[in-house]
Amino acid sequence: MNTIGKIFRVTTFGESHGMAIGGVIDGMPAGIEINLDKVQYELNRRRPGQSSIVTPRDEKDQVKILSGIFEGKTTGCPIGFIVENTNQHSSDYENIRNTFRPSHADFTYTSKYGIRDYRGGGRSSARETISRVVAGAIARQALEQIGIQIYAYTSQVGNIALDNDYKKYDCSLIETNDVRCPDAEVAKKMHNLISEVKNDGDTIGGVITGVIKNCPIGLGEPTFGKLHAKLGEAMLSINAAKGFEYGMGFAGVGNRGSELIDNFINNDGKISTTSNHSGGIQGGISNGEDIYFRVAFKPVATILKEIETIDKDGKSTILKAKGRHDPCVLPRAVPIVEAMAAMVILDAYLLNKTIHL
Amino acid sequence: MNTIGKIFRVTTFGESHGMAIGGVIDGMPAGIEINLDKVQYELNRRRPGQSSIVTPRDEKDQVKILSGIFEGKTTGCPIGFIVENTNQHSSDYENIRNTFRPSHADFTYTSKYGIRDYRGGGRSSARETISRVVAGAIARQALEQIGIQIYAYTSQVGNIALDNDYKKYDCSLIETNDVRCPDAEVAKKMHNLISEVKNDGDTIGGVITGVIKNCPIGLGEPTFGKLHAKLGEAMLSINAAKGFEYGMGFAGVGNRGSELIDNFINNDGKISTTSNHSGGIQGGISNGEDIYFRVAFKPVATILKEIETIDKDGKSTILKAKGRHDPCVLPRAVPIVEAMAAMVILDAYLLNKTIHL
Amino acid sequence: MNTIGKIFRVTTFGESHGMAIGGVIDGMPAGIEINLDKVQYELNRRRPGQSSIVTPRDEKDQVKILSGIFEGKTTGCPIGFIVENTNQHSSDYENIRNTFRPSHADFTYTSKYGIRDYRGGGRSSARETISRVVAGAIARQALEQIGIQIYAYTSQVGNIALDNDYKKYDCSLIETNDVRCPDAEVAKKMHNLISEVKNDGDTIGGVITGVIKNCPIGLGEPTFGKLHAKLGEAMLSINAAKGFEYGMGFAGVGNRGSELIDNFINNDGKISTTSNHSGGIQGGISNGEDIYFRVAFKPVATILKEIETIDKDGKSTILKAKGRHDPCVLPRAVPIVEAMAAMVILDAYLLNKTIHL
Amino acid sequence: MNTIGKIFRVTTFGESHGMAIGGVIDGMPAGIEINLDKVQYELNRRRPGQSSIVTPRDEKDQVKILSGIFEGKTTGCPIGFIVENTNQHSSDYENIRNTFRPSHADFTYTSKYGIRDYRGGGRSSARETISRVVAGAIARQALEQIGIQIYAYTSQVGNIALDNDYKKYDCSLIETNDVRCPDAEVAKKMHNLISEVKNDGDTIGGVITGVIKNCPIGLGEPTFGKLHAKLGEAMLSINAAKGFEYGMGFAGVGNRGSELIDNFINNDGKISTTSNHSGGIQGGISNGEDIYFRVAFKPVATILKEIETIDKDGKSTILKAKGRHDPCVLPRAVPIVEAMAAMVILDAYLLNKTIHL
Repeated sequence: MNTIGKIFRVTTFGESHGMAIGGVIDGMPAGIEINLDKVQYELNRRRPGQSSIVTPRDEKDQVKILSGIFEGKTTGCPIGFIVENTNQHSSDYENIRNTFRPSHADFTYTSKYGIRDYRGGGRSSARETISRVVAGAIARQALEQIGIQIYAYTSQVGNIALDNDYKKYDCSLIETNDVRCPDAEVAKKMHNLISEVKNDGDTIGGVITGVIKNCPIGLGEPTFGKLHAKLGEAMLSINAAKGFEYGMGFAGVGNRGSELIDNFINNDGKISTTSNHSGGIQGGISNGEDIYFRVAFKPVATILKEIETIDKDGKSTILKAKGRHDPCVLPRAVPIVEAMAAMVILDAYLLNKTIHL
Repeated sequence: MNTIGKIFRVTTFGESHGMAIGGVIDGMPAGIEINLDKVQYELNRRRPGQSSIVTPRDEKDQVKILSGIFEGKTTGCPIGFIVENTNQHSSDYENIRNTFRPSHADFTYTSKYGIRDYRGGGRSSARETISRVVAGAIARQALEQIGIQIYAYTSQVGNIALDNDYKKYDCSLIETNDVRCPDAEVAKKMHNLISEVKNDGDTIGGVITGVIKNCPIGLGEPTFGKLHAKLGEAMLSINAAKGFEYGMGFAGVGNRGSELIDNFINNDGKISTTSNHSGGIQGGISNGEDIYFRVAFKPVATILKEIETIDKDGKSTILKAKGRHDPCVLPRAVPIVEAMAAMVILDAYLLNKTIHL
Repeated sequence: MNTIGKIFRVTTFGESHGMAIGGVIDGMPAGIEINLDKVQYELNRRRPGQSSIVTPRDEKDQVKILSGIFEGKTTGCPIGFIVENTNQHSSDYENIRNTFRPSHADFTYTSKYGIRDYRGGGRSSARETISRVVAGAIARQALEQIGIQIYAYTSQVGNIALDNDYKKYDCSLIETNDVRCPDAEVAKKMHNLISEVKNDGDTIGGVITGVIKNCPIGLGEPTFGKLHAKLGEAMLSINAAKGFEYGMGFAGVGNRGSELIDNFINNDGKISTTSNHSGGIQGGISNGEDIYFRVAFKPVATILKEIETIDKDGKSTILKAKGRHDPCVLPRAVPIVEAMAAMVILDAYLLNKTIHL
Repeated sequence: MNTIGKIFRVTTFGESHGMAIGGVIDGMPAGIEINLDKVQYELNRRRPGQSSIVTPRDEKDQVKILSGIFEGKTTGCPIGFIVENTNQHSSDYENIRNTFRPSHADFTYTSKYGIRDYRGGGRSSARETISRVVAGAIARQALEQIGIQIYAYTSQVGNIALDNDYKKYDCSLIETNDVRCPDAEVAKKMHNLISEVKNDGDTIGGVITGVIKNCPIGLGEPTFGKLHAKLGEAMLSINAAKGFEYGMGFAGVGNRGSELIDNFINNDGKISTTSNHSGGIQGGISNGEDIYFRVAFKPVATILKEIETIDKDGKSTILKAKGRHDPCVLPRAVPIVEAMAAMVILDAYLLNKTIHL
């Protein structure tokens, strides 16, 4: 199941230390101008080595489009693409060849498939998300044409958290710091926490908030294709994600219904709501208000400390991670969250075109 | 998109006040003995009118199996079923015929489709979940044969919450009270809160915890078919769900990686983990430990108070709900959460059979 | 896999002698007026007992729509429907309970599933096609709104064949005889042949020709979703179908390319072709010309003669069919071919709406 | 829709004159040893320039596997692959940039997408089948492990035809001549006809027969996933295919049922049939007998003669094809037919594993 989407479908392939990471984007609308610089820009946001608080691996992650774009425009035919793996040190991983790293996918992959490409996590590596960022960056160029805007930011690192209300923050500030947090002061604290955790050889989790503005009314399908269910599925498919909520989310369960009702008003013919506890989705279908959601990311398990674990034969062994890892995945996960949101929204937009003859 | 699942696929149909609610279960393994009393038992758990804290509507919700079961066993052919709508008062809904109830699906359905069966919410009614309960009850009978056990319970109502650790509670106590909470004392408090809210003509939200025990190692697909992403999608597709988390969930983002690592141990050849912050899923694939997750449900918007809203023509109007509604959906949502979990796990189990020749 | 289609999806259920045959139509466009008499009309064309050359079983085959149509129009929600089985004589089939009828599905179903509803062929019975006819009749009402016309007719019975060129025949004559052949004289010969075969207790095969007029340009997907591949798959899924061809078909393989080229012409801005060997589809995509195709149906294997076969235990036994069967399936298969064509074309039409933003 | 299959899924991308043709194979069982020489061998059978009766284009068509195979074995992860386009003369196609070649996909692609990569047919080029041959060659290596054997051969070119009974021919002779016909004498006649047609600047059609031996009992799904419907869909998705039949096919419609019944016999516990008019499939499910089928290919429309046609603006123009083309696609289509059959059978095999718990 390396495909997501129904109309706009993205299939990815590639292991961390294989020849290339890549994918196929199928169902992209025809005739959309594609700016490849924008695709590379998103890849650069995801790229290792971009700051002192992310893994120092130096990967260029240059995308090559192999098909589906002709004279600068999408043709409606599938867009094949690859990103070659260039700075892979397989030897870094010799020590985990036969060892199951705790809280990683080593054990489950080996159990499921009977075989595992152990180099750098193989298919379970977050390098797979390169393909998502490429696909999302292309989807986004279609969405821009219909005025839909998507952004995400780091809203919590460890216990340092922004207020839940995204409207308090200016999204133009997100890229002004290496944490991707729109509040400079909080960003500094987050940066310091990540640095501290890094120095300890440890890791820390956090929350990313995503926002979708100007989403047309009517996207999403009742029952099993609810827009928030598709967003949730997509977000939970990102490595290290542990939770998803939208609108009032978990925090709203303590309220009474009367406190959270979003009243309708008619502003010169445009129906909107006076509040937006619903998170822009009612009955699984977008209602034209801002869609907002939060994704929890765990502190990843690759810590630079000795850990007792077992090997393939079930024997005890001591593991000391060597590779070059992220103390906190949040800053690099922001463009991935945006990419997944773009893919889900474009898919829902195209599917919604089939509701009427 | 009224179908969920890839191998075990459930398609549902039916509106609240139409002739019948029903569905088709396709991909059910052949040769499984089906006890229809168990199916009806689950429907009864979901049924309105079962206690003083749920809607007093008196619906029998008797399931009729139309195909796919022969001489008490599944044949591998699709199982069609219906539950007739018997106690429907369409007149209850005349007042919402042209009105958009706030925080309901009236506005989004009308906008999307240009037409809406307004009687009782039509397709957006939670009566649709009847079909899910039937399908889940049948899936569960297959899962029982391979030893998989699924249960859910109300773990929070308003701000009254159990401890997050499901292992502290005895699942055999869940059905001993009308809230479906395994702690009798807390259940009493929850019951009282719901009664109070009901008397106020208001509603209240909460959290349901789900647990899957004895899940075989290897279920779930890497990348886009991660087991928790499929569980999340399924849970978020339930009416009123606003969030999903599994394992350490949102609470774990404040921890350091070193605090949450689940160490492997070898117990006489059986590899397990000493803790289970991962929630039984690593890299998207079940690792044999208990799977546990939490689903947030909002306080639903049908309150028995006058609300200002607008009608189809965009004019202001006052709405006073009449129908018979639930002050808190949690007690009746417990069997729905279990049903969705059963469907997802059976689907993953069957799909996992295709990994090897 | 009891579902066909990607956007317009039909899922069927039901066995010949179960409680009901039925299905769910999902993805039907919203707001389409549905005339149920037209649905029943198509069911009557498929109905047993309609003439002296089909099975004398007297089945009323009354359709009940359970959902998805409100105040005479489709709502965009799934359309559930059933047709109750009323005139089923299970006792007719006691003799095949443990016997594998040759050239039927008894052996393969039993081998695949380990269990079989032997009554009247169970799921393998052509009664399953009732659900297709219902779904096709509803699809057709959407297609009529965009001017697409679909018809089929019996073009060959045994060795009595019409000319391959459908343009020689007047489709308004199809329903004027019980064979559903638009040439009265040939129809009479076909009728006589079927009667003769019936008197012999034997069966005979034939060919049905299908025609789709006014199909918009652009339906069908390159590569794996070619319009003719989808039509072929749909037609080959009909019981007793053995072959499918479109346009020049098998007959064209003897020609040279230069003989079969369809030249383009520009008629006042409308581009069309001077001939139509392509059959209205080029590169898998409709080109606006008539789509025409042929489906081969075998002489079915239920003959009223003693046949030596084996039983479930592999022992020799003599089988003498009792049931009431069709000497030739062609007349009743005509509406099924039309129904499948309508489903495929509507699905392609809706999918084609997603090509552009 | 550039994906085929449900469990074993192949997604292809690439245009004739783009950077590369490629694809992703998802759902390949884990742990299968892959011999890449066998993959290249199949590509060489499809390759242009291999004999005097095919296009003289000199394309090496070297496959590069990018993922999913580790230490010589499949890992269960998606297999990405590319074949670079090396010998492409875009200038050959300047003359068709604005012209619609008759009986090609130029007009339909332009109409559907509003844009077209005109170089060498772009996506509609038969170069796309490279990806199918790669995927088929990998599927085949899984099938070999369970003893399934697949072969195809040219059974008709123009009006020169073999007997319909595949059992009369020795499949080991197929590769002994450039037509891929297992009868040396007939092959010579076919070769001469193709040469003659080539000298005339014309093209000729034909038929390919496919055979699947040792297919396990039980593959294929009743109703919409009948094994022959899936084979038909797959074969009709090959460029230039115009018809598909299996078993008795079109020829059997003239027979009576009593003539074509395949009687069961019990050979020491193995149930088989004394004849095989059914073509190895009954009720849509394989019965253990040989599966055989025939695919009609049209004479392709690229002829080296002046043809009158129209351009993008609807104006008349004269077209004289320059490129380097095949006078008869049959010899090079044989490995494509085999590849599609391998993909369909492996998919059905894997799906059949989900029938029982």
